[in-house]
Amino acid sequence: MTVREQAQKAREAARTLARLGRAEKDAALHQIAAALRASVDRIGEANAKDLEAARQAGLSPAMIDRLGMGPTVVEATAAGVEYVASLPDPVGSRGPMQRRPNGLLVGRARISLGVIGMIYESRPNVTVDAAALCLKSGNAVLLRGGKEAQHTNRVLGEILGEALEACGLGRGGIQIVSAESRESIHELITLVGLVDLVIPRGGEGLIRAVTENARVPVIQHFKGVCHLYVDESGDLEVAKALVLNGKTQRPGVCNALECLLVDSAVAERMLPPLAAALQAAGVELRGCERTRQWVPSAVAASPTEWGTEYLELVISVRVVDGLDGALEHVAAYGSNHTEVICTNNLAHSERWLREVDASCVCVNASSRFNDGGQLGLGAEIGISTSKLHAYGPMGLESLTTEKWLVIGEGQVRP
Amino acid sequence: MTVREQAQKAREAARTLARLGRAEKDAALHQIAAALRASVDRIGEANAKDLEAARQAGLSPAMIDRLGMGPTVVEATAAGVEYVASLPDPVGSRGPMQRRPNGLLVGRARISLGVIGMIYESRPNVTVDAAALCLKSGNAVLLRGGKEAQHTNRVLGEILGEALEACGLGRGGIQIVSAESRESIHELITLVGLVDLVIPRGGEGLIRAVTENARVPVIQHFKGVCHLYVDESGDLEVAKALVLNGKTQRPGVCNALECLLVDSAVAERMLPPLAAALQAAGVELRGCERTRQWVPSAVAASPTEWGTEYLELVISVRVVDGLDGALEHVAAYGSNHTEVICTNNLAHSERWLREVDASCVCVNASSRFNDGGQLGLGAEIGISTSKLHAYGPMGLESLTTEKWLVIGEGQVRP
Repeated sequence: MTVREQAQKAREAARTLARLGRAEKDAALHQIAAALRASVDRIGEANAKDLEAARQAGLSPAMIDRLGMGPTVVEATAAGVEYVASLPDPVGSRGPMQRRPNGLLVGRARISLGVIGMIYESRPNVTVDAAALCLKSGNAVLLRGGKEAQHTNRVLGEILGEALEACGLGRGGIQIVSAESRESIHELITLVGLVDLVIPRGGEGLIRAVTENARVPVIQHFKGVCHLYVDESGDLEVAKALVLNGKTQRPGVCNALECLLVDSAVAERMLPPLAAALQAAGVELRGCERTRQWVPSAVAASPTEWGTEYLELVISVRVVDGLDGALEHVAAYGSNHTEVICTNNLAHSERWLREVDASCVCVNASSRFNDGGQLGLGAEIGISTSKLHAYGPMGLESLTTEKWLVIGEGQVRP
Repeated sequence: MTVREQAQKAREAARTLARLGRAEKDAALHQIAAALRASVDRIGEANAKDLEAARQAGLSPAMIDRLGMGPTVVEATAAGVEYVASLPDPVGSRGPMQRRPNGLLVGRARISLGVIGMIYESRPNVTVDAAALCLKSGNAVLLRGGKEAQHTNRVLGEILGEALEACGLGRGGIQIVSAESRESIHELITLVGLVDLVIPRGGEGLIRAVTENARVPVIQHFKGVCHLYVDESGDLEVAKALVLNGKTQRPGVCNALECLLVDSAVAERMLPPLAAALQAAGVELRGCERTRQWVPSAVAASPTEWGTEYLELVISVRVVDGLDGALEHVAAYGSNHTEVICTNNLAHSERWLREVDASCVCVNASSRFNDGGQLGLGAEIGISTSKLHAYGPMGLESLTTEKWLVIGEGQVRP
């Protein structure tokens, strides 16, 4: 089947999925979870082929690790599907209906988007996670994972399709798009009228290629260059906790910290202990000239240091002149992802909350909280750094939209 | 100045506009309204050049009429700007802040989008309307009107820029993009990172060309093929009022009716009076075979009749078998714009509201109500038939987005 034919099948399935009630969708999700648990061996066999190919291709141990879909990952994935079943169904809810002067009742109802294309790399459990979120939100999904996970994804697709069928739903709602060629990505992102939204997840190169060539709407998540600004009034112990958590708890993710900004008024007092804490945690510091005055052990920052996403135990450090200096730096080098201030000054906190343009703006809280689960969305399908439709973590609601309802008794427009 | 340079200037201005309070924005809007009223002659002179060129180019009287910007249109436009000033400011409002188990307060704040590109044709008052809505929502705007209105638009741009300057705001916030060449459209829609959203308004060709070539997000409004389905339980007088209002009140607009569907169970009783009312209003009927059985004067519908947007006093008429037949027809030929049912059956009304995929779904109300003003948005910058970000009329809120706020006391992620 061509990608276009798959999309046509998905389009038909989407009409059915959009109308399902919560009970039917949750039943299908529980069926999927059970099917996954019953298929540990079948998944393991397919996964072994991908792992073997990855080893032969000389992929890094970290990448091979991400590819693994052993019994523990399968169990966690199945539990994740059950968790999605436990979340409220956003589809069908209606907002307040306003009575217009002419007596019309007008308001909005939440509906599914239709057909969603997911383009991703590596981790095969994304196949199941994304399918579960799309099913719960009443959308059909076309899943185009990476070539490195193709055997695993194919088997997962079979299991998901069989589970849908067992519930009396067609297989069109969850389909795997072939990862054999790059061409299938191009087809998927140009199916105007058949695909309602494409969500790319992966490296910057993938996301840029999708954005540049797509003809259908794309919600992208570019890199996360997250800053922590330590204000004059900030608490040193809080600052220490935030910088350590942001930089070292999981350095390879997009909401990890990449740059520490310190107010020049407190650089002498704050920088040495902050630097010592980071260095004790194995973090390399790359500092501006003023930083190196107080932390001589910091490497001199190169001219291209600001705005760099390290994704490892490296952090850039810059002394800035007060809140305005920090806001300027973030506006120039931030990536609209997550920006943190450590302060006890209410006016500064308010200006940070108002003036910083990022999907998540934090006061005295770790950048690592920019996450669907942490923010109360239950689960997320990605973190958008696009401003249209969704900005920040995308939960079930972000996979829906609203239509207008108008209820009258024969009203016409004069 | 190149379009890129204009966009860079707009980007800078956007940072300032995003932070303005309501009072400052409303003052600028009142300044614009006053400046327009004081410039009736200046606008008239420029407009005369466009009108003369249009006559020489042999444009239709309807098109020339749309180009006109005489004293009456200027006054209405100025009043429109004052009306926008009277609307609530969406920027800066915050939704409920939820307390998370770890004590964090999380919620969302409404913010401006940034830089908006408007691409439109004909009516020069759109230049002012769009500028007012963008200013009120804290966005910078790049206005690329049609070549046929270029003299008028250039002068309007000067007046708008002078008004901004008189209020101490730079001219970067409202700029006219040259309509000399088609190339400026292409530049505008490919400025990734500088332009946050492009809204094309105009003919299907323009919107399709923009959608196909854009690299930045686009919210498009394609054609409106709106249906009225008269259900078995529908009231004949209500059906008559809805079909007449939808088809004849303003046939050239996107929320006008293009197709009448009648339940076969009541075709014999309903079709002849509905047809007579339409014909008495000068509407040409193009009917299916079953329609012509009861309305022999209807023209036989051609095989391509369904899904046609006439925008004139023509309507297609089809007899369908009950609600399911109507839903099938609308799913196959609708344009996701506006779909109306005339019914007194609650179950049918609910199924219509739930199952029809359109930006506005109406029960016993005219399709002409799919309009920002009519739905209580105050004003609109267009009607989106895209589902992402906005579906239906786009008011001030649709020109904004939401970012997450996280307020803590030093919380980190375990």
